[in-house]
Amino acid sequence: MTAKISDIAKLAGISSASVSRILNKTGRYSEETAKKVHKIAEEIGYYKDISASNLASQKSSTIGIIYTTLNTNFSNIVVDAIVSTATMNHFDTIMMQSKKDDANDLDQVCQRMMERRVFSILFVSIRPTAKTIQLLNNLGIVSLLVGTASPLSTPYISSNDYQIGFQATQFLLDRGYQKIGFAGADTTTDFVRRQRYSGYLAALKQASVRFSQDWKFDGDFSYDAGIQAATYYCHHQDLHAIIAASDEVSWGMLNGFQDRGVNVPEQIAILSIDGTDSCLRTRPKLSSVTQNFELMGKTAIEYLLQSPKNRKSKVFIPFRIDPRNTTR
Amino acid sequence: MTAKISDIAKLAGISSASVSRILNKTGRYSEETAKKVHKIAEEIGYYKDISASNLASQKSSTIGIIYTTLNTNFSNIVVDAIVSTATMNHFDTIMMQSKKDDANDLDQVCQRMMERRVFSILFVSIRPTAKTIQLLNNLGIVSLLVGTASPLSTPYISSNDYQIGFQATQFLLDRGYQKIGFAGADTTTDFVRRQRYSGYLAALKQASVRFSQDWKFDGDFSYDAGIQAATYYCHHQDLHAIIAASDEVSWGMLNGFQDRGVNVPEQIAILSIDGTDSCLRTRPKLSSVTQNFELMGKTAIEYLLQSPKNRKSKVFIPFRIDPRNTTR
Repeated sequence: MTAKISDIAKLAGISSASVSRILNKTGRYSEETAKKVHKIAEEIGYYKDISASNLASQKSSTIGIIYTTLNTNFSNIVVDAIVSTATMNHFDTIMMQSKKDDANDLDQVCQRMMERRVFSILFVSIRPTAKTIQLLNNLGIVSLLVGTASPLSTPYISSNDYQIGFQATQFLLDRGYQKIGFAGADTTTDFVRRQRYSGYLAALKQASVRFSQDWKFDGDFSYDAGIQAATYYCHHQDLHAIIAASDEVSWGMLNGFQDRGVNVPEQIAILSIDGTDSCLRTRPKLSSVTQNFELMGKTAIEYLLQSPKNRKSKVFIPFRIDPRNTTR
Repeated sequence: MTAKISDIAKLAGISSASVSRILNKTGRYSEETAKKVHKIAEEIGYYKDISASNLASQKSSTIGIIYTTLNTNFSNIVVDAIVSTATMNHFDTIMMQSKKDDANDLDQVCQRMMERRVFSILFVSIRPTAKTIQLLNNLGIVSLLVGTASPLSTPYISSNDYQIGFQATQFLLDRGYQKIGFAGADTTTDFVRRQRYSGYLAALKQASVRFSQDWKFDGDFSYDAGIQAATYYCHHQDLHAIIAASDEVSWGMLNGFQDRGVNVPEQIAILSIDGTDSCLRTRPKLSSVTQNFELMGKTAIEYLLQSPKNRKSKVFIPFRIDPRNTTR
């Protein structure tokens, strides 16, 4: 039994339109009547129906968030920051999950999100197809990638991935490491990974270090990929250091090396990309390129608060390098 | 410009009611007309408005999820499992965040959730007040705690926390540890923590081990609480083993001990409660009481799929003890 405006109207002896004006604080009404209406509303457990009021105004204060999984090393930080900043700014958030690397599934989730009349969809570490983006544009729904970049014209908020690859490599070169591996990401298919890889290659080239194809070990950003990478690199101990695609990969690699009696950083150095808390919790602590995921989430909401003409199509969030104990 | 049913009706030259029947697959209509309607709907970018159809039917297929933060060691696993199981069963999920240990904030978030016309609210590791539960009951909204228990009459899905405390202690006693500490949870205020603590005390008593108040070190389940616990216990090295309230606490304690040159498990053993992946990733690997968070999330949706009369008010999800390398 859901209490309705008409129920309040009946009990207060006034019209539904008047009740609506009072509850929505529009138009004029006496304070006495307003008091009465609010009291009745509370007594009968009336709650304003957001569906109904969105329908009536055709405006929505709801932000949709689509993510693949929270159980990674940073998506949860981005999502937490989005939700808390959205809440502070009186937006509601609706979250939905999409399968990883499944464009069809993502399209369907987007469609269900549109049906919810959100005014914006934030994609956390996941990229919709050009077709979906076009559709969202046509419907006037603001789409924004957070924590990832795209070669398409979709606006995004992320780190500068080319610079991450370049500066990570430069950092290791500056410390005297020459033969530097690149582990844990598939560098052939994905835009972000290709960007980082390009930066890495460019820094090696600039330092006149001749890159060898077997310095690279592909993977899917996971802890297990790190374990596999350690096994692989144990047969390539001529390397001096390895850049790992994520904290998960670094962690797996560190454990993989240690379990095989390979000392980090004495025998081989590791530089992680991401820099979440887990870098501080491994022993030795992981040196890392540290991204600011919290700021990415916060900036996403600030983007939506701007007027459309002031919105930039790319926002790069600064990163830093934190030397810890897996590099000398 | 949102496309409406009436726009389709106009273009198809039939009534809005007919269009609605076709789109909702109710009533009779010719296949030819249906084809035409679907084609127009696609062309003009029509999406069924869930708000409108929920309003019309006064039924909702949306589940609300309220959590405090995803950035813990297990809430993200529970939430992921809820969302993916809900999706599989054609439910939508709306997630909202509430501040930790702030009953007022939680009440407000609940209210905003009710305004969204959800048919159920799942509380992940957070407990609403009796007043809120009563209100939800009055409105016919199914409330359910997941990953936590409550002394109130709210139904919940969790591990049996008394048994966790009891069996964890028993496990250590069986391995010859006598003086066993209890670290990282505030045992005075919280229901779940008190349950575990009672189990711990009961097991000690049964084994005729005389408990000493300074075996207990309170905390807030965090990594930092673990670091602090290690400092504390370094001055109480007569203890043989410690039960830690969470993986985070265990991890902090393990690092805290190692950073001080205290060997685990040679000098002191640690048994963690939770058993998430991080237990496999520390060195040495953490022995743990392992809860099944994925099954908790899955079971929450199964609970909702049952008819109200078949729903149990308490569902205990089995846990197990995984001996690894921080106990002998």
